[in-house]
Amino acid sequence: MIKNDSKAVVLLSGGIDSATTLAIAQNRGFDIYALSFSYGQRHAVELKAAGRIAKKSNVIRHLILDIDLRKIGGSALTADINVPKNRSAKELKKNIPVTYVPARNTIFLSYALAWAEVIGANDIFIGVNVLDYSGYPDCRPEYIEAYEKMANLATKAGVEGKQKMKINTPLIKMSKTQIIRKGIELGVDYRLTHSCYDPYDSGEACGECDSCLLRLKGFTDAGLKDPVKYKK
Amino acid sequence: MIKNDSKAVVLLSGGIDSATTLAIAQNRGFDIYALSFSYGQRHAVELKAAGRIAKKSNVIRHLILDIDLRKIGGSALTADINVPKNRSAKELKKNIPVTYVPARNTIFLSYALAWAEVIGANDIFIGVNVLDYSGYPDCRPEYIEAYEKMANLATKAGVEGKQKMKINTPLIKMSKTQIIRKGIELGVDYRLTHSCYDPYDSGEACGECDSCLLRLKGFTDAGLKDPVKYKK
Repeated sequence: MIKNDSKAVVLLSGGIDSATTLAIAQNRGFDIYALSFSYGQRHAVELKAAGRIAKKSNVIRHLILDIDLRKIGGSALTADINVPKNRSAKELKKNIPVTYVPARNTIFLSYALAWAEVIGANDIFIGVNVLDYSGYPDCRPEYIEAYEKMANLATKAGVEGKQKMKINTPLIKMSKTQIIRKGIELGVDYRLTHSCYDPYDSGEACGECDSCLLRLKGFTDAGLKDPVKYKK
Repeated sequence: MIKNDSKAVVLLSGGIDSATTLAIAQNRGFDIYALSFSYGQRHAVELKAAGRIAKKSNVIRHLILDIDLRKIGGSALTADINVPKNRSAKELKKNIPVTYVPARNTIFLSYALAWAEVIGANDIFIGVNVLDYSGYPDCRPEYIEAYEKMANLATKAGVEGKQKMKINTPLIKMSKTQIIRKGIELGVDYRLTHSCYDPYDSGEACGECDSCLLRLKGFTDAGLKDPVKYKK
């Protein structure tokens, strides 16, 4: 499906999923408006990764919004709670972990919706997936569908019939390995990405948090070596 | 319906509608967690009003979040577009005005949802209404219903069955006059509120923007005098 001369807002965290999502949107012919958030996350180093990816991808614009989720708290990523380490694959699947950030995707998508309305885009891309994910509720298809329905009732452009919002989730049923293979096919440079929830001051990944473990397993299963640096 | 020992997040802008909504929630027995936003609005004086109302109402907590909607733009309230003045009642009903802020209620409700999850509240109150409103799409019942559906799929607490989110809109079918009468009945001190989209540096209301006009008409129709100061 090639859709030329069209704008898309792409949520870009700087990790593997969002970098691949951006490449997929671009491959479909969209002009990319990349949106990132400085939200008090521990891993602010991921914002630098988002900047590198946006630059390398020649996006039309890369907007970084400052939103302080720390004031709301409730997550190991934004409050003073330890990031869990070295959990088994079984543990990863069992419970929604403390790295869950309350309503994060809902907040991110709401800004994407606002920006899409202002620039006249009909498409938002978000790199959620349900297979190799950490059990976050706001990554599920039923959530995305409900969001899209709401979004089409929320805006002036929608009500006036000038806009039909689509929340695109090209990775939703892909495994981390499939995502990485797709990205390699599209020329994504994974050296530019960052996934670790709890990186060292040097920027090196811990190799032990859920995000590192999923990422490492994805590369291993794809028969590839992860190009980013790990502390151990 | 009295619901004791329960927490509610109330979106508090500092205007008549949100002040009345807070009073209604409190009257229903909720402990109030008031949420306001500094969003680059021209009428930042309304944040002071929100603070006065929160204090007078003895809310449990009043959280003010800094979110820069100016970077997204697209509205007379957040960008360099003139606020329309002295529009007739017919004009007010006709088109969605330039004071519409793209996806504002969607963004506000998303933060309310995040906070509700963190504090364990099942109820969010928002003072939207469809009668004497300015034609904003994100004030309509069908929008609110779609939001509530989405919200119940979005959170960890919801998925784990610990939370059932309700978006309460007690004013949705009330006229400005009915809202004011209800507020007076509940002891709301409207001197503390602020509604003007384009106030003078002195803090005095312009008396000519859509918001002032709706407010003034509401008081007149209720047979009351608006207690706030107008420039003319």
